[in-house]
Amino acid sequence: MGDPSKRDLVSIEDLSTEEILELFQHADEFRANLSDWSDVCRGAIMATLFFEPSTRTRLSFESAMLRLGGGVISAADKESTSRAKGESLADTVRVVGGSYADILVVRHPEDGAARVAARYARVPVINGGDGAHEHPTQTLCDLYTLWKEKGRLEGLEVVLCGDLRYSRTIHSFCYALARFGANIVTMPYAGFELPDYVLHRLTRDYGVQTVAASVADLPGLAGSSNAAAYLTASKPHQLALFTSLTRFEVNRIDAIYMTRAQRERHAGEDTANYPRLGRNTLGVEAARDARVMHPLPRVDEIDYDVDDDPRSIYFRQAELGVPMRMALMAFLLGKIQLRARPPAATSVEPGIAGGAGLRCRNERCITNNEGVRYLQRDFRLRAEESPPMLACAYCEREIEARFVAQESTRLFHPHAAPAVQAIEIAKRIYFESEAQALAAGFQPAATA
Amino acid sequence: MGDPSKRDLVSIEDLSTEEILELFQHADEFRANLSDWSDVCRGAIMATLFFEPSTRTRLSFESAMLRLGGGVISAADKESTSRAKGESLADTVRVVGGSYADILVVRHPEDGAARVAARYARVPVINGGDGAHEHPTQTLCDLYTLWKEKGRLEGLEVVLCGDLRYSRTIHSFCYALARFGANIVTMPYAGFELPDYVLHRLTRDYGVQTVAASVADLPGLAGSSNAAAYLTASKPHQLALFTSLTRFEVNRIDAIYMTRAQRERHAGEDTANYPRLGRNTLGVEAARDARVMHPLPRVDEIDYDVDDDPRSIYFRQAELGVPMRMALMAFLLGKIQLRARPPAATSVEPGIAGGAGLRCRNERCITNNEGVRYLQRDFRLRAEESPPMLACAYCEREIEARFVAQESTRLFHPHAAPAVQAIEIAKRIYFESEAQALAAGFQPAATA
Amino acid sequence: MGDPSKRDLVSIEDLSTEEILELFQHADEFRANLSDWSDVCRGAIMATLFFEPSTRTRLSFESAMLRLGGGVISAADKESTSRAKGESLADTVRVVGGSYADILVVRHPEDGAARVAARYARVPVINGGDGAHEHPTQTLCDLYTLWKEKGRLEGLEVVLCGDLRYSRTIHSFCYALARFGANIVTMPYAGFELPDYVLHRLTRDYGVQTVAASVADLPGLAGSSNAAAYLTASKPHQLALFTSLTRFEVNRIDAIYMTRAQRERHAGEDTANYPRLGRNTLGVEAARDARVMHPLPRVDEIDYDVDDDPRSIYFRQAELGVPMRMALMAFLLGKIQLRARPPAATSVEPGIAGGAGLRCRNERCITNNEGVRYLQRDFRLRAEESPPMLACAYCEREIEARFVAQESTRLFHPHAAPAVQAIEIAKRIYFESEAQALAAGFQPAATA
Repeated sequence: MGDPSKRDLVSIEDLSTEEILELFQHADEFRANLSDWSDVCRGAIMATLFFEPSTRTRLSFESAMLRLGGGVISAADKESTSRAKGESLADTVRVVGGSYADILVVRHPEDGAARVAARYARVPVINGGDGAHEHPTQTLCDLYTLWKEKGRLEGLEVVLCGDLRYSRTIHSFCYALARFGANIVTMPYAGFELPDYVLHRLTRDYGVQTVAASVADLPGLAGSSNAAAYLTASKPHQLALFTSLTRFEVNRIDAIYMTRAQRERHAGEDTANYPRLGRNTLGVEAARDARVMHPLPRVDEIDYDVDDDPRSIYFRQAELGVPMRMALMAFLLGKIQLRARPPAATSVEPGIAGGAGLRCRNERCITNNEGVRYLQRDFRLRAEESPPMLACAYCEREIEARFVAQESTRLFHPHAAPAVQAIEIAKRIYFESEAQALAAGFQPAATA
Repeated sequence: MGDPSKRDLVSIEDLSTEEILELFQHADEFRANLSDWSDVCRGAIMATLFFEPSTRTRLSFESAMLRLGGGVISAADKESTSRAKGESLADTVRVVGGSYADILVVRHPEDGAARVAARYARVPVINGGDGAHEHPTQTLCDLYTLWKEKGRLEGLEVVLCGDLRYSRTIHSFCYALARFGANIVTMPYAGFELPDYVLHRLTRDYGVQTVAASVADLPGLAGSSNAAAYLTASKPHQLALFTSLTRFEVNRIDAIYMTRAQRERHAGEDTANYPRLGRNTLGVEAARDARVMHPLPRVDEIDYDVDDDPRSIYFRQAELGVPMRMALMAFLLGKIQLRARPPAATSVEPGIAGGAGLRCRNERCITNNEGVRYLQRDFRLRAEESPPMLACAYCEREIEARFVAQESTRLFHPHAAPAVQAIEIAKRIYFESEAQALAAGFQPAATA
Repeated sequence: MGDPSKRDLVSIEDLSTEEILELFQHADEFRANLSDWSDVCRGAIMATLFFEPSTRTRLSFESAMLRLGGGVISAADKESTSRAKGESLADTVRVVGGSYADILVVRHPEDGAARVAARYARVPVINGGDGAHEHPTQTLCDLYTLWKEKGRLEGLEVVLCGDLRYSRTIHSFCYALARFGANIVTMPYAGFELPDYVLHRLTRDYGVQTVAASVADLPGLAGSSNAAAYLTASKPHQLALFTSLTRFEVNRIDAIYMTRAQRERHAGEDTANYPRLGRNTLGVEAARDARVMHPLPRVDEIDYDVDDDPRSIYFRQAELGVPMRMALMAFLLGKIQLRARPPAATSVEPGIAGGAGLRCRNERCITNNEGVRYLQRDFRLRAEESPPMLACAYCEREIEARFVAQESTRLFHPHAAPAVQAIEIAKRIYFESEAQALAAGFQPAATA
């Protein structure tokens, strides 16, 4: 298993807010004085292990490593994704992250795969996108671009438009915006709203409040504006005045973040009227100082004649990805040090083995796919919630644990029963339902 | 859009004759003193973007860049060629030719794609083969090899044999041979003759004259010799004596350039009797000092037992490709300067927008394929021709513009009508046919 | 054809025993002082030509070359394996091993392909696996790991378990173990026994004797132990005591080498009860100091919970592959010199052309596949055997030459006929059977 002192970037939460800001400054320095840093990673090797195709992300990482003077080895073999035969991800990263490479970038179609890689590799692992879970370097690049354009992140009004449901980029970006104190205006294409679990996490972890919003009429994005919502953690006074009948009025837009329909994750949803940002969209007064962002590739959701508008910064986003990734890799390889402190240990309990019956409910989670052969299920407990909340340690999907059992008695109890308090925390066995507990061979305790 | 001061190599015409000769000398120097030049591109990154497979060309470029001390990133993803989904070439090169790489090598199945890449990338673009359009570095390598073998290019007698119809390599090589004053003997396999547009361009741009030729009987190539023709710009006196009943007698051959049947571009043509060069071919007196060339890969058109003949230089061609490409990239990256002047601005008029109705007639042109979404049609006008000739600015296919219209009057005229002279050149709108003009909403002018 | 002074690694026999031991010491040095050696191959380029996928082997070589300061170009194109169209292996290596690269690593699905590559390339060729023939760098890494773990190779008791029939890794390892004086215990899965030709070569070339063996009961491997055999060249006294009724008792195991079922080479054999090494296997006293080895990838034949056992060294095997390959490449590129002498010229006669009728009997041999177009059949004669034995110079498969003919008389004789002695060795033409000789147009000699 991995070295506990090494740093990985599986989730954007693996970096503290202060570390992120410090990395921005290093990225600026790398960019300004590229040739001064062309030997900083000399002798280091990065391996890109892409079990799902992504030319852009891979090339960005490879360019960054070469610009730091390091070497690159690359496996981008779609056939490796075949789950029936072949080697486990754990074995692959133990081999490649043994002596072959000094840092790994992993892209994988299963949620939670990057955490598996980080656990098994002896070297730092960067998540290059794992299923619908996270894509943290895209988020870092997006934040860095916005920070450079606007000089700050706090208090910005950022419109997210299009497919907010299936885009992991959007989800990671939401958490990060909330964390940096930016406000989010969601303008989803109908049927592609932000998922409840994202909203729930925004509320719980960042104190975000949501109200209906009224956005200046933005031609081309009209189909999205009906469902607009305003998500903020920074303006409690204002929002306190709002009722369900009023709407928050957004009249200054700092950025519009467009995203393409993630068709590869769809089940045939209709996208005929998908929003399309054009010159007329940017003609609106509220968008005067807006920046147009897009994680690329674009399909048709931004007109080509917007490319020359100075507010269009999507190619700049891609460009800034290289110095941002340079800073990240130089940091993870120990070639630059940060003064900022790492994120505090999370407040959740240490992992518990859910072997007695729990199973991650996310069917795309690696624990339900290729990991079945070798991964021990592992959940993090948020004991302060009621019912207790268990999050999969790999994909972070949450489960309410409504029943708690004890091995020694083979009895299970409702989570709020006084008997539960008597069970040592480390010995509690959690279940979602009575049926699950019964299936695992436990009996209901007699009612007290 | 691209930096106007940067140099690209989309067509062999993008280099002046003197520049080419100077690059040969640099290639010689790189080859002779390889280790002296192993840092000249240190810190630079080349990206190979291959939307069509070509292991050989890609590896040659990658080797050249590594030998110059630079780095390489590579995308050779056949799936990117899918035109229905995915990113435009323009977007890809803006991203990869933004901060990822300092020079791009692009191979693409559509004619004109390299010009699109050159327009949109901020960094130099080298055409690694675009559809049936051009493959200029292959031509540079061929010329360089022949120049080294024979000490000159002017006045050489070069036999081109096999599939002269579909091979872009052959077409580019023809233009270059004519430009350097070499004479061409075409020995096409029946049905695979040099296309008319190539002959037309040879005549117009290089003053080449064509006569029937009689070539020494070359066993193995017999099937081709019936249609032999002699193309020369350098021997007007001699040719003046020829009538349609005589044939120019080729009795000294300096090089035989074989080419495989380009089956991937065929529509089922029969190649059962395709020419095959063997030991007996080289036993002919006229071939005593000939060199056997081939762009490779060979299939069966040269016997394996010819490989050991000292006149066989096809592997040497491949070998010399590396120093030639080193010289080219060092030049485009500004690492070496040439004393020679760049090609003069072409005599054609600046681009005109053909939006009023013109459409490139080449169905494989990028403007009729993936570029439909975002490219503005663009034609170069050769005003001196009558009817005026318009060449697609991307794939160079030419169209006769038989009708000329004017926006203000919404009337169109035959190209030779006096009324046309009264229209300012920049305001002329060109059409191939009356039907096309009518379809665009213009009316025929009353006869004067 | 290749430079006769260059060294290749096609078979493990291409290195002398002393050279191998000296390479181990260099590997140790590279590993211990990695940064001291990071420039030793600066300026050199390795090409990996993989006509069959193998991410692990390719990445290991690429990492090794980068760690030596060299550059890497790579072609891993499955489509190149298509034999109908496209370029011959000989042409490919002449191009890539011309000026593109300074050393080639070739993997190919046909037996003997690496020898073809070595013959045609001007630069050193390393066999990265050719069909079912050899995979010598895997063997070097296996030996190196075992040597480091046990401090020696001579006299070790090495159990080989699983699919001993189709695994080229196992075959190469057997020869090498015998050569270094280690003893082999075979525990094949039923139906997957070591092939006769491997046993024959072990006997003939290394004096190995085989007796039935009785191995301590190893849970999980039980299905294999019934057929256990003990192969040794070093204990003639002991073995002399054994009769067909007794079994050699193996009560100390130094290593268990597991191998997966090579399903890609199977014809539907049942592997339902394939052996599976688990914690219980290692609980046996005889295995107390055993090391568990595996060439990887593992499928299910070693339980995941064995990974943490200190005796499990399969990930270490992979790790040590990098310094081992560094040492090998530095040697072949002439960057380090060995004091040890190369292997003596083999005792076999120089190659004979078998054009008169012989054909390699191995249907997977490159001479019967893509080489049909251009390879001359070539056999090495072991004249001392009776009947004479001819080994294919490419894939090493042996044929008994029961009949010998002479061109001048057009007669053939049984190999033991006195008339054969009268034929000059270089003029003897060999046949497997009368039918083959007759088919080639020879007549039987009258009985003497």
